[in-house]
Formats: sequence, structure tokens, C-alpha cells
Amino acid sequence: METPKTPSPESPEVPEPTGIAAVDWAEASTDPRYRAAVVDLLGALAYGELAAFERLADDAKLAPTLADKAALARMASAEFQHFEQLTERLRQIDEDPTTAMAPFASALEEFHRLTAPSDWLEGLVKAYVGDAIAADFYREVAARLDSDTRSLVLRVLAETDHSSFAVEKVRSAIEADPRLGGRLALWARRLMGEALSQAQRVVADRDALSTMLVGGVADGFDLAEIGRMFSRITEAHTKRMAALGLSA
Amino acid sequence: METPKTPSPESPEVPEPTGIAAVDWAEASTDPRYRAAVVDLLGALAYGELAAFERLADDAKLAPTLADKAALARMASAEFQHFEQLTERLRQIDEDPTTAMAPFASALEEFHRLTAPSDWLEGLVKAYVGDAIAADFYREVAARLDSDTRSLVLRVLAETDHSSFAVEKVRSAIEADPRLGGRLALWARRLMGEALSQAQRVVADRDALSTMLVGGVADGFDLAEIGRMFSRITEAHTKRMAALGLSA
Repeated sequence: METPKTPSPESPEVPEPTGIAAVDWAEASTDPRYRAAVVDLLGALAYGELAAFERLADDAKLAPTLADKAALARMASAEFQHFEQLTERLRQIDEDPTTAMAPFASALEEFHRLTAPSDWLEGLVKAYVGDAIAADFYREVAARLDSDTRSLVLRVLAETDHSSFAVEKVRSAIEADPRLGGRLALWARRLMGEALSQAQRVVADRDALSTMLVGGVADGFDLAEIGRMFSRITEAHTKRMAALGLSA
Repeated sequence: METPKTPSPESPEVPEPTGIAAVDWAEASTDPRYRAAVVDLLGALAYGELAAFERLADDAKLAPTLADKAALARMASAEFQHFEQLTERLRQIDEDPTTAMAPFASALEEFHRLTAPSDWLEGLVKAYVGDAIAADFYREVAARLDSDTRSLVLRVLAETDHSSFAVEKVRSAIEADPRLGGRLALWARRLMGEALSQAQRVVADRDALSTMLVGGVADGFDLAEIGRMFSRITEAHTKRMAALGLSA
């Protein structure tokens, strides 16, 4: 069976890159609102990667075998490498990583607190869903960034997708016991629901970031476009879950 | 203040490399006892690195700041990279990593169970002590290995020593509150005691490994030499602890 591919980001709904994509950081960052938005973005992504590291390392304890434990530890370790790259970038642009991350800590901690897996399969589904949503988001946001920040985000994105082992494990578990499908489908929906709910909190709190996410600071804040971005990510998630046999 | 250096391995007590050090894996591994010893060694080191990953990731939760958390996560991630290199080597020589690691799981889990840090400073001391003892052991064993296995061990060793941040933190905590010194000194002794006690279990159980550790299978099993190796490592530990202000 094939591993479900992440849907291509090249759907006709994705807005064209704005003018910012054509310039580098030195030029783009002269706009203080753009600078603030990128600092927010890097802070949010960095904290997200660090929190993911912690949770995956924790969830590795649920692994039934040493090989499974190693697979989850491998993902955790990859997330930590992303954290290093993102915080290194913050330091390069003279920002303190801790200060940049602080505004996003509570939303991310709350997400993980509300979605602690109760067993190994829930942990696998979470690892896969989290990895895929992160990849979608990196892809969405890349088009809205200056060339330097964009290459960083694409570099991190290229190293994402360590979760194909999770797909196989979940599939074969459902084949062996089809009743698992219903429970895991509910779990996957809950993961997406909590992720969206925390993302909405961040959008409401962080104007500069939210404005940038929907097409560059010059275009102003557009709540409807934020909604469309979330719905593209949700749609991709739903397709992935269906491919995994979790369409309940 | 200077970071205490790990004492040099070039003391006159260290035995000269035996004949095995002059040959490569292809030649050395024709002796089934040597082969078994190396599989044991790689299995023990790999499980040690995976267990260290888990514990450091866990102890990162005790960190008082995000920067401290990141420092411990960085060590955890480095241990996982070592795990990858060691298990990759096992696969290269057609050994199943899980099978090779299994005999060492209980000693390593027991060590970590008995030495769970109760606070951040204990976690830091453990990270530093663990890192340093591992480095000493890698250095000791390297001389007894064929050239291929030796280069792997030296490569992993070269990436050890992520713990100098721990030294600074522990020192300044003791300067700020000298009473901490007594408690942490006891803790460091307990760590070494538990490490030696588990190491003795492994030595008693794994003849081929123990024999190799003291100078190559050709020289036969020598309990006194094992004792001398442990006492070199203990002595180096004591010197490091004194340099850290933990000489109680």
C-alpha cells in the first residue's frame, strides 16, 4: 500500500506570493511590522519544535518495541534540530529566542496538555498529524516571506516528514482490529480541533503575525483569508486521514 | 574559571593496545569470541545512548528556563545521534540492534530508575557525570578494538562533551548557596556508586565483553584488570567532582 502523500500546496486557492517574496531580509525588515511578524513566526515555530521534541520524547515511552521507541526518538531529535535552526536565525537577526518564543508558550503547552495520547497508537496518530500539519503550515507561510526567511523555512520543511513509519503502523493496527478505526478517527478529529482552537487564540493575540500570514503586511489584516488558510490545512488533514482509513 | 578538563587517558597505568588494535574488522571478527564481544559492546553503548536520550529529555522538564531546557534537549538529541551511529554499525555487520541491546536493558534501566534527579541541579550533575563517565569509558575501550570499530567509537567520543554548560550552572549555584555543595557531592557519589554497581552486574553476566575490555580476547579474563579500569574511571570522576567544588 502506498503512503498517503501530503496534498500539493499548488492548489488554485493558494494566493500568489506578494511583493515581499521578491526581496531579501535586509530590505524586508526595514518595515518594522514585517520584522515583528517574522520574529513572531520564528518564535512560534521554534517553541512549537521544542514542545514537539518534548512530547515525542515522552510519547516514545509508550512504544511497544525498541525499534518503535527509536523511531519516535528519531522524530523528536529531528524536531530539536529544527528548533536549533530557528533559534539560530533569531540570534542572527539580534533577537533573543526566549523573548520571541514566550508569547506562544501557553497556546502550545495547552495544545499538548489537552492532547496527551493515552496509548501508543494515539501517540503515532498524533506524531503523524502533527508532522503533516506543521509541513502544511510551513508550506503555506513560505510564500509570504522574504527570500532569506523563506529559504530557512523551506530547509526546515525539507527535513520534516519523518512520520511515514507511523502511517504503516496505524494502518496495520486498524487492519488487524477494525474497531480501532473509529476511536482513532475521533482522536484525529480532536487533535485537529484543538490545534485550530489554539491557532485561533494566537491569531487573535498576534496582529502582526496574523496579518503577514494572509499575504504580507501591506495588504492589511484579513480574517476571511486566515479562515481560508485554516480550511485548506483542515481539508488536507481530512484527505490524509481518509487515506489512513480514518474517515469516521 | 576554567571548565575542568577530563583527565588525559595517556596515564602510564593504561595498558598498551593489544594485537587486535592493529587489524581491521574483517580480520578481527573471524574470531567468534571477539565478534561476540564487539556486538555486546555496540549493543550496550547503543542502549546506553537511547536510555540517556530518554532520561535527558525527561530531565529537561525540570529546567528553570527555556535556554536551560534547550541545553538539556541538545544533549539528549546528541545522544540519539550516537544511538543511530551505533545501531547503524550493528546493521552493517548483520546484527539485529534490538537483540544486541536486550542483554543490557535491565542494568541501564535500573541505573536510571535508581538515579532519577529530584531537581534541576541534580539533573545537571547527572548529565555532566554521565557524559564524562561515558567519555572515559569510550576512551578506555577504544584501545582494545580493531581499527574499524575503534574509528566508530572515537567518532562518537568526539561528539560527546555537551555538558560544559552544566559545569558553569552547578558552580554558580554552589557559589550562591554553599550548602548545596554537600548535597550535590553526595548525589555525585551516589551516581558513581550506582553506575559501578550496574557495571559490575554487566561484567559478571557478559564474559566475552568483559574479557575484551581488559585487553583482547587472546589475553583471557582478568578480574583484577577490570577492577583497575573501574578505578581509573572512578579516579577521573573524583578529580572532576573536586574541580566542580564537590569534594565532600
